[in-house]
Amino acid sequence: MTVTTWHGGAAAVVTLTFDVDAETPILAAGRRYADHLMTMSHQAYGPDVGVPRILELLADLGVPATFFVPGWVAEQRPGLAATIVERGHEVAHHSYSHRAPTSLTAAEERADFERAIEVFDAQGIEISGHRAALWEATRVTLDLIASHGLSYDSSLMGDDRPYVLAVDDRSVVELPVHWSLDDWEQYAYLPSPQIGSVIESPRKVLELWRAELDAMRHYRCLFNLCLHPFLSGRPSRLLAVRDLIEYAQSCGDVHFTRCRDLAAAASSDRALLPRTPPTVSADSTIYPD
Amino acid sequence: MTVTTWHGGAAAVVTLTFDVDAETPILAAGRRYADHLMTMSHQAYGPDVGVPRILELLADLGVPATFFVPGWVAEQRPGLAATIVERGHEVAHHSYSHRAPTSLTAAEERADFERAIEVFDAQGIEISGHRAALWEATRVTLDLIASHGLSYDSSLMGDDRPYVLAVDDRSVVELPVHWSLDDWEQYAYLPSPQIGSVIESPRKVLELWRAELDAMRHYRCLFNLCLHPFLSGRPSRLLAVRDLIEYAQSCGDVHFTRCRDLAAAASSDRALLPRTPPTVSADSTIYPD
Amino acid sequence: MTVTTWHGGAAAVVTLTFDVDAETPILAAGRRYADHLMTMSHQAYGPDVGVPRILELLADLGVPATFFVPGWVAEQRPGLAATIVERGHEVAHHSYSHRAPTSLTAAEERADFERAIEVFDAQGIEISGHRAALWEATRVTLDLIASHGLSYDSSLMGDDRPYVLAVDDRSVVELPVHWSLDDWEQYAYLPSPQIGSVIESPRKVLELWRAELDAMRHYRCLFNLCLHPFLSGRPSRLLAVRDLIEYAQSCGDVHFTRCRDLAAAASSDRALLPRTPPTVSADSTIYPD
Amino acid sequence: MTVTTWHGGAAAVVTLTFDVDAETPILAAGRRYADHLMTMSHQAYGPDVGVPRILELLADLGVPATFFVPGWVAEQRPGLAATIVERGHEVAHHSYSHRAPTSLTAAEERADFERAIEVFDAQGIEISGHRAALWEATRVTLDLIASHGLSYDSSLMGDDRPYVLAVDDRSVVELPVHWSLDDWEQYAYLPSPQIGSVIESPRKVLELWRAELDAMRHYRCLFNLCLHPFLSGRPSRLLAVRDLIEYAQSCGDVHFTRCRDLAAAASSDRALLPRTPPTVSADSTIYPD
Repeated sequence: MTVTTWHGGAAAVVTLTFDVDAETPILAAGRRYADHLMTMSHQAYGPDVGVPRILELLADLGVPATFFVPGWVAEQRPGLAATIVERGHEVAHHSYSHRAPTSLTAAEERADFERAIEVFDAQGIEISGHRAALWEATRVTLDLIASHGLSYDSSLMGDDRPYVLAVDDRSVVELPVHWSLDDWEQYAYLPSPQIGSVIESPRKVLELWRAELDAMRHYRCLFNLCLHPFLSGRPSRLLAVRDLIEYAQSCGDVHFTRCRDLAAAASSDRALLPRTPPTVSADSTIYPD
Repeated sequence: MTVTTWHGGAAAVVTLTFDVDAETPILAAGRRYADHLMTMSHQAYGPDVGVPRILELLADLGVPATFFVPGWVAEQRPGLAATIVERGHEVAHHSYSHRAPTSLTAAEERADFERAIEVFDAQGIEISGHRAALWEATRVTLDLIASHGLSYDSSLMGDDRPYVLAVDDRSVVELPVHWSLDDWEQYAYLPSPQIGSVIESPRKVLELWRAELDAMRHYRCLFNLCLHPFLSGRPSRLLAVRDLIEYAQSCGDVHFTRCRDLAAAASSDRALLPRTPPTVSADSTIYPD
Repeated sequence: MTVTTWHGGAAAVVTLTFDVDAETPILAAGRRYADHLMTMSHQAYGPDVGVPRILELLADLGVPATFFVPGWVAEQRPGLAATIVERGHEVAHHSYSHRAPTSLTAAEERADFERAIEVFDAQGIEISGHRAALWEATRVTLDLIASHGLSYDSSLMGDDRPYVLAVDDRSVVELPVHWSLDDWEQYAYLPSPQIGSVIESPRKVLELWRAELDAMRHYRCLFNLCLHPFLSGRPSRLLAVRDLIEYAQSCGDVHFTRCRDLAAAASSDRALLPRTPPTVSADSTIYPD
Repeated sequence: MTVTTWHGGAAAVVTLTFDVDAETPILAAGRRYADHLMTMSHQAYGPDVGVPRILELLADLGVPATFFVPGWVAEQRPGLAATIVERGHEVAHHSYSHRAPTSLTAAEERADFERAIEVFDAQGIEISGHRAALWEATRVTLDLIASHGLSYDSSLMGDDRPYVLAVDDRSVVELPVHWSLDDWEQYAYLPSPQIGSVIESPRKVLELWRAELDAMRHYRCLFNLCLHPFLSGRPSRLLAVRDLIEYAQSCGDVHFTRCRDLAAAASSDRALLPRTPPTVSADSTIYPD
């Protein structure tokens, strides 16, 4: 039996990821919101106030991170991606417009995907991986990732450790996410478009994530945390993230890494045999449209 | 007065039940979700990652459990039911397709029910009991359970102890469930189809269930816990289940059993007089359709 | 200045009230649910399992309570109201069918109101007060209460102490309720009809209510707790109610009473000057229908 | 580099703000609710019971506050605004009717804005600032604020410190708000119109706000708390506000001020360079209406 190596001996591996969505999830719900000043300012807080504060925190604690940035956001704020990369972090592909792939035709999805690639190319930002908007990846998404030579995706939930997907004749590393390691479900709140229903206390969120980290150390998993600067960039939430990182560092058996580096480690792990992407056949005589 | 015996002298009886729904609740909301890779992988995590981990936990702690498996799931993952039975647990009937009986015609419900029976027959899995998809049992459900000679149902909420239903000229033991002893309301979250709104901390869930277990020991009830491997199979949630089981074991007055064994004990309890299934007559001059 | 006397010198007055709705709120959402066995059994648990357990608890602790019972429920379960009264508690009017008055015509509301009066008359149950279904009282509701000579209503939220409403040439005591002193918002959960979204831990609910009781002792208010036997009759929730009552008793300055007795005390309190019921005039050139 | 001075040396500045909405948010959802007595009484509790209690609390603790009052409310309750001002607090503009500006035409918004100005003028109440109904400010809102010579707005979320907006050739100070410092998301609950889903414990809310205050002291921010008298005027919630204020006072580095005074300090802070209001251009070939 081949011994698995992706974790490099750590009890758990942590990838801190920040989805710098800015205005895009709102615009995807309707252009009309562009005139809603509060909503736009709520989203702009992410790159404008949250990101600088997050970069400072990461520098303080000496941990690397991965920032998933929609092409539109990189385009609108020209220096943003470069600043992140200069600090030693990774910038990764997060669509151009943050529309859910499951809501697009294959041609629309391809155009959106490639437009983001062009933006990052033009800015000299090297891209190694992808996360689907709303995590709503399709079979087309995987094909685009593979055909553009990216090494990983981070949108699926089929495991809580990295795994390898066979896509056509290539391999794509999947760095799985999960709703419980996302700040959106804990903090997001907007009445129009309607998002969220409860604003949780950072203490509850810290408790939730610490428990998951400890359990993932027990089971040797990937703690792939997904944060949004417009949410977790707020003062008390960011200090809770700081507490979490400091706790993880104090454990002594947790490894922090960028997604691209973890994807490389997973790619060279001979124990990770390629799996087939989800292929579910649903009988039309039983299940409705 | 006849002395009741179903509890065998325990202060509370625990039935750990796992609904191995996999993709079925999502497909029942629409076949189109079969192409939503994240959603499908979220559900596949249940049988693929959650169940093996759960089986290991149950073996570690030496407690038996009951797994309610839709026929479609047993069919799609041929070794699944057999593996569960080999470990000493019970596999029970959970419909074929996980569509709510209240949404089907009597003929559709019968066909669905019997198709699951055929799947388990073909796999050599002996079935003693049934739980309706979404707990949405109808009068037809009870008739099917009785006419197929199953000994129990576990879908209703008319009590918090086992009770006996008179169905035609037969008796069906009801092992009642409740929303507060289900992990779905605490953890389930999906935006599309929209499920859930808040992701609770396992600490809160453990607090909720420990309080109910203690109170059920006070009132001598059935603690019929309903868990979903795609939810409670996640690391920190499963460790909370471990804590709960270990706590129950430490009480010294809690009995763990499989549903079929509890149904047998309830069947032979002479104090449990058969009750009529809910029969509510609603005046059409008062109540709307 | 006239000194107010309704509280009888207590720091806070507690009225424990139980809305024994049984199946009615569900049938009001649609007769079709009569065939949903789980839903019906979920509601039947209230009078069948919850009420006996509640009566036992109240007897143990020696506190009186008020049970608001829809006429339909009293009719369907003939001994129910009498049993409650025999234990020294009050049975009060809670409509016949539990349809919201705001959804009925004046004639429909009158017919519903009077049908409940007839049911209680036929059962020899003396009625002194009323609570609107869903608390959705209308101006017609107040007129019916006044014209039938009932002494109080318990549906409004204009204060947190008893107050007196001038209705035509009569006075109706209002014993105000509030969402935060209702178990529905904390515990109710049903997917179809859709009710509730989060099931809270009894520990949180106890914390919420203890904090309000303490603050009401500070401000000398009426702690008018609204519980539903199908919700708070469950084991751990009922033990939380026990903890709350025992805590209140231990304070030494809290008075427990039935609604009718408190209404009498408020009626004879000369400091409570009659107020006008809410009369809001909304300009149709500004506000939509 | 110019040193910023808006905070006057404090670690954090606190503006306690009370939105005295009374019936207006409900009427904006439909005039028909004027006949829903419970709902109207629920809202009337704010000015009738909540505000006097809040004024007493503020006097006890010796802290100033700002009350945002819709013109309609000031008109309906003639002595309300004057009483607030007499106690040393600020009354500010909160629209006339509490309809969201984003739902109005420019002409409708202007008429609504100016009608409130007239009400306050007639009552001799001096107005310095504005908060949009539902925080749903538009570009028109900023123009109205600037053209009427008000010094600040408090509806946007682009930062967590005061900032200055360039509006035409004037400057408007923005005192930013945030969902997490609003009691609505924690406490509001009404079934019809449907508002809220969970009623939180004041202990949780206090924990949330204390954590944010502490973090804002760390980052030197504006703690702009938005409270509604019909929500936070309830006994235990108000005592939680008392605890929060007393905690802030005990820190020794927190400054309490009225919004108008903070706006003045921000106006004279040379380090606050005017920013452009949010101007987002959304491509119609990508984003839907």
